[in-house]
Amino acid sequence: MSVTDPQRVALIGLGTIGMSMAALHLSRENVTVDVFDTRPDFDQYLLNTLPNFLDQGPSSTVASLIASGRLHIHTSLETACASATIVQEQGPENLEFKQTLWAQVESLAPLSAHFWTSTSGIAASAQQQKMSDKTRLLVVHPFNPPHIMPLLEIVPSPDTLPERVEFAREYFSVPGSKHRPVVLQKEISGFVGNRLAFALLREACYLVQEDVVSAKDLDTILMASLGPRWAGNGVFESYQQGGGEGGIQAFLDKLGGTMQVVWDDLGKVNVLGNEETSWKDKVVSQVNGAYGTLTPGQVREKEERLKDFVAVQTKKYGHDVPEA
Amino acid sequence: MSVTDPQRVALIGLGTIGMSMAALHLSRENVTVDVFDTRPDFDQYLLNTLPNFLDQGPSSTVASLIASGRLHIHTSLETACASATIVQEQGPENLEFKQTLWAQVESLAPLSAHFWTSTSGIAASAQQQKMSDKTRLLVVHPFNPPHIMPLLEIVPSPDTLPERVEFAREYFSVPGSKHRPVVLQKEISGFVGNRLAFALLREACYLVQEDVVSAKDLDTILMASLGPRWAGNGVFESYQQGGGEGGIQAFLDKLGGTMQVVWDDLGKVNVLGNEETSWKDKVVSQVNGAYGTLTPGQVREKEERLKDFVAVQTKKYGHDVPEA
Repeated sequence: MSVTDPQRVALIGLGTIGMSMAALHLSRENVTVDVFDTRPDFDQYLLNTLPNFLDQGPSSTVASLIASGRLHIHTSLETACASATIVQEQGPENLEFKQTLWAQVESLAPLSAHFWTSTSGIAASAQQQKMSDKTRLLVVHPFNPPHIMPLLEIVPSPDTLPERVEFAREYFSVPGSKHRPVVLQKEISGFVGNRLAFALLREACYLVQEDVVSAKDLDTILMASLGPRWAGNGVFESYQQGGGEGGIQAFLDKLGGTMQVVWDDLGKVNVLGNEETSWKDKVVSQVNGAYGTLTPGQVREKEERLKDFVAVQTKKYGHDVPEA
Repeated sequence: MSVTDPQRVALIGLGTIGMSMAALHLSRENVTVDVFDTRPDFDQYLLNTLPNFLDQGPSSTVASLIASGRLHIHTSLETACASATIVQEQGPENLEFKQTLWAQVESLAPLSAHFWTSTSGIAASAQQQKMSDKTRLLVVHPFNPPHIMPLLEIVPSPDTLPERVEFAREYFSVPGSKHRPVVLQKEISGFVGNRLAFALLREACYLVQEDVVSAKDLDTILMASLGPRWAGNGVFESYQQGGGEGGIQAFLDKLGGTMQVVWDDLGKVNVLGNEETSWKDKVVSQVNGAYGTLTPGQVREKEERLKDFVAVQTKKYGHDVPEA
């Protein structure tokens, strides 16, 4: 079955990520969405919350999606999964929960259905332990908010069939999609995006702990340099460009000395345990002082800006024709 | 003297960063720029190259800047520095060169002149060793290209006078400036921006070495998630938002387990020495294969896009009024 054929996506767990994911799927005309969540006021919660994620905005849209048969609210996992071509879960980040869920889903969903977990940290090979068929499950790790952020990290287990991986990749990269799925070649803790983020965060926490810079000034530094640079180029392409004609090799030759000094000197703070965790109070206090709790208006403002950054990424300026 | 009074900036060393810095200063109507470089064809090189950095573009602009007395080309350090209110160097990243240069500049420039080094790695406290007055020199570390990239890391030595620091900060943050100077509280190897970049780069090199992801796919991951996120928010504000009402404390409580696993497991590759440097061939080969040498048209395309990212950062969408 092609990704552009009619699809029926059963979404399990409709917290913030789930709502955003529902909006992503509903933006596809060939997709019907079945939603299931165990919270008691789920119907009302969905009606109140989903409109914030839909492009159209007005709350009547949810009613019209339901009326037109594109969105179905379920009160049982069984009915939600019964006709699914794709089952995607955004439940709690708890191994036992996910293992139990997938064993149930396997018994309820059609044999052909694809199984996707939006986990940020629990590998498919761990989640599938109680399943009898381990070839169907893979990680589709979104970045918040998934209806805007282009990345989906697709991480199969060693048992996942290649055609299951390819289906997921194609689903998120159909013509017109703003999404950019990337398939990882191996399972690894934190996958790639969060490993890169946490590597930078560790050093950021260290620099605040050492009083080199305040949390707010560090954020300014990132926004005024690496953020826009990495929005336009990846880290490798940036250094390929930075090395001039010699590319990244010339960059490593020239900056290798400074780089090794910095690598030897990177902060070794920890978040758990008792050693080198004293940065936490300082960072939390400075971050609360600088930002407080973001208002809904501020969050909305940030989402609008994020959409603009993503739009600029694919804009053409007419200079990129190779010169004669 | 106020930063908006007439200033005369002597720029020493006009490579790529120097040219871009000249364009930055020339965009200020109150600034006259004196340029000096030891390359033999300096006149012609400047006439050919500087227009690429000026907003106006056409090459006649350089001639008109010279004719109107806003730009002076010098054949000696002495005449370049003679009337300077600011001397800024972008010379080779070599400690001895910089120590000798500042001792010379000190003997040539007016007693009131500010001394700025655009170094990416050599602290002011090291550069000032041969100066008799160590209160005037500070690091003004730009990110490439400085005429577009908003960040300037201002890093005084322990001897730099606070009013020298404040002058530099004010100079880059006058009304209408697109630049965002940040003053670091301590000297540290790599300053802050490159420490954060190198922390992320080290993990990126490790993930390519381990065949988790290709160099090009890693760049896509960064561009499709963290780049645009950090263009709009710093890393701390992102996690403050990610933690919801509980802010970054709630984020650390919830994700601390995964974070510590990742921190314990971060790659320990090196760029110098013989240990754990085998990633270099693989990374260089993949990066060359993915990007080759960027054409001038591609570089121009990237600069135009960078300008748009920076413009989006200050755009208002009308949602950020705190709600009642």
